[in-house]
Amino acid sequence: MTSGTSIAEWFVAYGNTAFEIIGTLAFAFSGLLEAARKKLDIVGMAMVTFLAAFGGGTLRDILLDRRPFFWVQNQFWIWVVLGLCAFALIFMRARHLEPTQRATAWPDALGLGIFSAGGTHIALQSGAPAIVAVIMGVITAVFGGVLRDVVVNEIPRAFLDHQPYSVVAFAGGWIVVALDAMNVSAFIAVGVGAFVITAVRFAAMIFGWRLPSWRV
Amino acid sequence: MTSGTSIAEWFVAYGNTAFEIIGTLAFAFSGLLEAARKKLDIVGMAMVTFLAAFGGGTLRDILLDRRPFFWVQNQFWIWVVLGLCAFALIFMRARHLEPTQRATAWPDALGLGIFSAGGTHIALQSGAPAIVAVIMGVITAVFGGVLRDVVVNEIPRAFLDHQPYSVVAFAGGWIVVALDAMNVSAFIAVGVGAFVITAVRFAAMIFGWRLPSWRV
Amino acid sequence: MTSGTSIAEWFVAYGNTAFEIIGTLAFAFSGLLEAARKKLDIVGMAMVTFLAAFGGGTLRDILLDRRPFFWVQNQFWIWVVLGLCAFALIFMRARHLEPTQRATAWPDALGLGIFSAGGTHIALQSGAPAIVAVIMGVITAVFGGVLRDVVVNEIPRAFLDHQPYSVVAFAGGWIVVALDAMNVSAFIAVGVGAFVITAVRFAAMIFGWRLPSWRV
Repeated sequence: MTSGTSIAEWFVAYGNTAFEIIGTLAFAFSGLLEAARKKLDIVGMAMVTFLAAFGGGTLRDILLDRRPFFWVQNQFWIWVVLGLCAFALIFMRARHLEPTQRATAWPDALGLGIFSAGGTHIALQSGAPAIVAVIMGVITAVFGGVLRDVVVNEIPRAFLDHQPYSVVAFAGGWIVVALDAMNVSAFIAVGVGAFVITAVRFAAMIFGWRLPSWRV
Repeated sequence: MTSGTSIAEWFVAYGNTAFEIIGTLAFAFSGLLEAARKKLDIVGMAMVTFLAAFGGGTLRDILLDRRPFFWVQNQFWIWVVLGLCAFALIFMRARHLEPTQRATAWPDALGLGIFSAGGTHIALQSGAPAIVAVIMGVITAVFGGVLRDVVVNEIPRAFLDHQPYSVVAFAGGWIVVALDAMNVSAFIAVGVGAFVITAVRFAAMIFGWRLPSWRV
Repeated sequence: MTSGTSIAEWFVAYGNTAFEIIGTLAFAFSGLLEAARKKLDIVGMAMVTFLAAFGGGTLRDILLDRRPFFWVQNQFWIWVVLGLCAFALIFMRARHLEPTQRATAWPDALGLGIFSAGGTHIALQSGAPAIVAVIMGVITAVFGGVLRDVVVNEIPRAFLDHQPYSVVAFAGGWIVVALDAMNVSAFIAVGVGAFVITAVRFAAMIFGWRLPSWRV
């Protein structure tokens, strides 16, 4: 194994992991904020935070019939979520909700990129056809938020806010599919896909892009 | 193989498929209409249409631990749903909602028949006991609509509209069970079951039958 | 086999079963009452009762990839639920709802104990790590109620009523984990866990304990 490979491997293992941590925390915070808004108790807070953080990947794995789930293999993440809830209970107040929401929009875009690109790749690996793999990527990144909203009795934000969010993940998934078809390494395929998705999402936020409205 | 067999086989393959297409489109339209009523964006429209069309069969397959799902094996259906959404975005207006709803009630009854009879048979094949198979048939035909309603924050219509809908599928499922126990071919068992369910549903619509009300 | 073993075995088989029956009926009644409050029809009543009674264990089995489900292996329970619905349709009136709710709070605590301790043990048996097993126990006992509430368009009671309910199951799950790690028999581990959880839940009801409120 050459030293170039080792550096790439190191980055795959740790750089990747760093982004995953940032993305997962952003998703978890979206659950925490929703729980605070709905004035849930500590049980509801833990459940909704957990769903927001891991619901998408878990649903993907159920659909693909993959085990073990991410949070079963990485149990420390369960403790992180519980610790986050304890922390929020002690320190978070109403005046923090709005700024936290704004602050997590950027790391959330990182989560959108890495989890939808990663989810698409995982689905391809398990033999799913291209369009199915792309949808599995969208489910990975978006359905944590969908389950979070359904469980607190809201129509999922992702279904009606006219934000270019799921569609960016959908479009970006095809980059992963194309690179994978060219026998590019997983690291490059997922990395490029995640980068493009995150960048386009950033652009959408900066320039205030919106999905076309339906003139019903 | 005699020529009679081939004709039957042809019908199993294509006649069956024609009814399936009609039923799936009717289910998909129910999602499309619900999305329009709730003013969802294109993402929500695609998701709710997809859930309405394939949610029931997918839930049955998860419960029975069957893979691949129908929409994974028949990917073109995913494109049909996306095309339907694009078509609706461009052409459907508020004044079309009510007439479309009324027009789809009849093909929907066809979907009820074919998917509940078919779902019951699939469950029997995979070794489920009779009552479980009948319930799996009901889930196949009805839970797409249940998931569609839950996700847009409505109590499922199937749970409170006092329509003889799920109960017709439940009763008809026993016909499939009985014919299957008599070693009748799948084609006959599912065909007779689907025909009776659809016919009774038609009758319920024509004569305005209602489930007895609960005097709570 | 000594006579002592046989008595224990008899109790495992039948004493256990008696508690399971009481717990399942209490959970089923919670669905029945919710259906009555929402004025669902007989279909909705059957579905919500079924979800409340078997939804938690079914979700646990889907997550652990276990088959067959309890209600597939014990089909007579499906008939019990249907019979319960028919009984309620005929005899239950609005004035019965409140007293029934109060009367089922005690057997419900029994269900909380036996299903969360049992669910934790099942998860340990299938190789889940400790924290995951404890969560699976909570899911077994609590998510029937969560699904019941989500499907009738309510924020799950378990998420916001500040009752020590899920947290008692969570804490008690660790007793099962600890006893299992000491190679105690399943009967003792689950029995002690279930007993402690039920006792603490009883105490919480008698003394009116509440979870600390979040000062958002």
